[in-house]
Amino acid sequence: MALIVKKFGGTSVKNAERLFNVADIITSDYKKGNDVVVVVSAQGDTTDDLIEKAMEINPKASKREMDVLLSSGEQISVSLLAMAIEKLGYPVVSLLGWQAGFITDSNHSNAKIKRVETDRLQNELDKKNIVIVAGFQGINRYDDISTLGRGGSDTSAVALAAALRADCCQIYTDVDGVYTADPRKVKSAKKLDEITYDEMLELATLGAQVLHNRSVEMAKKYNVDLEVLSSLTRARGTKVKEVVKMEKMLVKGVAKDINCARISLLRLPDTPGIAFKIFSKLAQKKINVDIILQSVGRDGDKDIAFTIPKSEAELAVETLKNAFDFLSDDRIICDEEVAKISVVGAGMETHPGVAAKMFEALFEQNINIQMISTSEIKISVLIDAADADRAMVAVHDKFIK
Amino acid sequence: MALIVKKFGGTSVKNAERLFNVADIITSDYKKGNDVVVVVSAQGDTTDDLIEKAMEINPKASKREMDVLLSSGEQISVSLLAMAIEKLGYPVVSLLGWQAGFITDSNHSNAKIKRVETDRLQNELDKKNIVIVAGFQGINRYDDISTLGRGGSDTSAVALAAALRADCCQIYTDVDGVYTADPRKVKSAKKLDEITYDEMLELATLGAQVLHNRSVEMAKKYNVDLEVLSSLTRARGTKVKEVVKMEKMLVKGVAKDINCARISLLRLPDTPGIAFKIFSKLAQKKINVDIILQSVGRDGDKDIAFTIPKSEAELAVETLKNAFDFLSDDRIICDEEVAKISVVGAGMETHPGVAAKMFEALFEQNINIQMISTSEIKISVLIDAADADRAMVAVHDKFIK
Repeated sequence: MALIVKKFGGTSVKNAERLFNVADIITSDYKKGNDVVVVVSAQGDTTDDLIEKAMEINPKASKREMDVLLSSGEQISVSLLAMAIEKLGYPVVSLLGWQAGFITDSNHSNAKIKRVETDRLQNELDKKNIVIVAGFQGINRYDDISTLGRGGSDTSAVALAAALRADCCQIYTDVDGVYTADPRKVKSAKKLDEITYDEMLELATLGAQVLHNRSVEMAKKYNVDLEVLSSLTRARGTKVKEVVKMEKMLVKGVAKDINCARISLLRLPDTPGIAFKIFSKLAQKKINVDIILQSVGRDGDKDIAFTIPKSEAELAVETLKNAFDFLSDDRIICDEEVAKISVVGAGMETHPGVAAKMFEALFEQNINIQMISTSEIKISVLIDAADADRAMVAVHDKFIK
Repeated sequence: MALIVKKFGGTSVKNAERLFNVADIITSDYKKGNDVVVVVSAQGDTTDDLIEKAMEINPKASKREMDVLLSSGEQISVSLLAMAIEKLGYPVVSLLGWQAGFITDSNHSNAKIKRVETDRLQNELDKKNIVIVAGFQGINRYDDISTLGRGGSDTSAVALAAALRADCCQIYTDVDGVYTADPRKVKSAKKLDEITYDEMLELATLGAQVLHNRSVEMAKKYNVDLEVLSSLTRARGTKVKEVVKMEKMLVKGVAKDINCARISLLRLPDTPGIAFKIFSKLAQKKINVDIILQSVGRDGDKDIAFTIPKSEAELAVETLKNAFDFLSDDRIICDEEVAKISVVGAGMETHPGVAAKMFEALFEQNINIQMISTSEIKISVLIDAADADRAMVAVHDKFIK
């Protein structure tokens, strides 16, 4: 007998048929004697439809009111799922964010969970109820509804599993686990049985889009055993935990991120603190800089290049031009046709051969590397966007057979 | 400067255009220096759409989960209305039932408001916010969401006006006031400037369908000045209060109720307590009996006839047949083709001419009266359903010119 937290995304509950499929998964575990708490997202396109309604009325609506609006999406899905479980004849109760004790900060539309007050939840479990909890939402200290931002239901589930000291937290998605690369793009991609939190974090950040990275950070912090699996196939998924069995496979995954842009600043005056001034200007605008490359130019001046999210490229160029007179049009170049390819795997730093092997794969494909960045568990390269898919397959197949 | 509670129904907020119309009405009063609290129903057909979703999954869903589902409708409308008011540039905050302090009993889907805890509301008014409150919903003592049943938003508004000691409570509908008869049916129907609570109650119960009768009862109990008016014409509406100016017009309205059935029990044994036994059986099944007529039959036995809501006719016949052996098929007759026509007006009991005038109108139309019932402020007659519209016009035009 265990306490299991399960999370189902919007596509898993998008219509009556899928709701009954999910109800069946839940009650299968319940009737084995387990306590089951379920976190659900809004059905299918509900959230997008609600956003559209709001945009029609006021594109600059306050985030507080957007949160009131959007949280109705999970309210609908939790009650419908509870009704499906009632239909199957099992005791069930649905709880909204505030009823389930999700207390967040006041950062509407992107709130952080401060704590989960589990009294009510525990009470419902003691009554042997299956508990269906609205993901993505909570309340702040003023009793105002908050939402956690896109993908926040993963975080809801992990926070709940941590607060209830659940035995495991199962995240059901439309893929059946974590793959060594996007299986739609890389035919030879393999499903992993296990992966560490850190590896998963790198893959989540790099655009693998299986798990919301805040949820992985939280799972790592509270040591919650995660499992990613499909609500349709019912096969074993991928377990995410602190330590995994040693495997032959050093590289756990290859990820591609095409939402990045490279900005190059050419022939900067070689004065002290110039890099500091540039990056603090960007930080003031909350622009996240990723890879940074600095080169000493030929005549005492130097070049700096860095990558940022594509959506922030325009703002970054404008900010820098306004701040620094010497950045004439020919000295600041923004390239949005770039992609970042990364290989991820714990223990990589002790295997210097990994980088060489990656560069070899790219060289064999005649793909030019623009920038390189390394950390303990990943190596990223920036390349031309047009080469991205080809690069991903080449790098993947070099490491994973 | 006054504190005004306004209530808008589903058709008044059904789309963006209507929402901005309502936002304009609200801010017009706010910018004159008034405190404004607004109660809103779910948009247009939202509630029906949600019920349909539930029926698809589980036609026997628990009322608790239905309440979670249905209350999302007002959650959507309050946030969208708040966004419209934000767009017009006024300070506004939306509150759900539980945030606005609506505490109800646990009778899910038909809950009664026990009290309104106004701390949060008062706090928002002190901050000079326009407050938009979700109608129709509250929470019980266990923090579970409850709904007040159809038309419950009227009751929400009156309860709020009572709790806040508001100066008035304006109920906006798609008609521009209370008429002496249904203006779609009776061409000569006149709009009333004022009407008493008791008169309104009789009209509401009798099917005038302008105000939910629970809301009128509550307004009477707490002496809340009501006004019924249209969100489209912006003309003066009808005021509902304890005492109204004396008017020439004794009869305030004529109402028709076609949702009734007449059950006749023939040749009952003339034993003591027979009527008591019959009506207590019906009361056990929670069947509401309206007009009762008892006649002594010729041979020591007697007949009893009574009216009940049409929806309960089948249950009533079955209940009585099972309970009393002597009720053979030829001794219990159920007629669903009946209609009740009522004239309503305070002070009627001191004017015996009213009944005579009503009967005269029906006689002139050659309409047969099956049953008669009178109270201090109304006279009702039961007639053939086929005659109902003709009877209503005739009676109306006899009294109101």
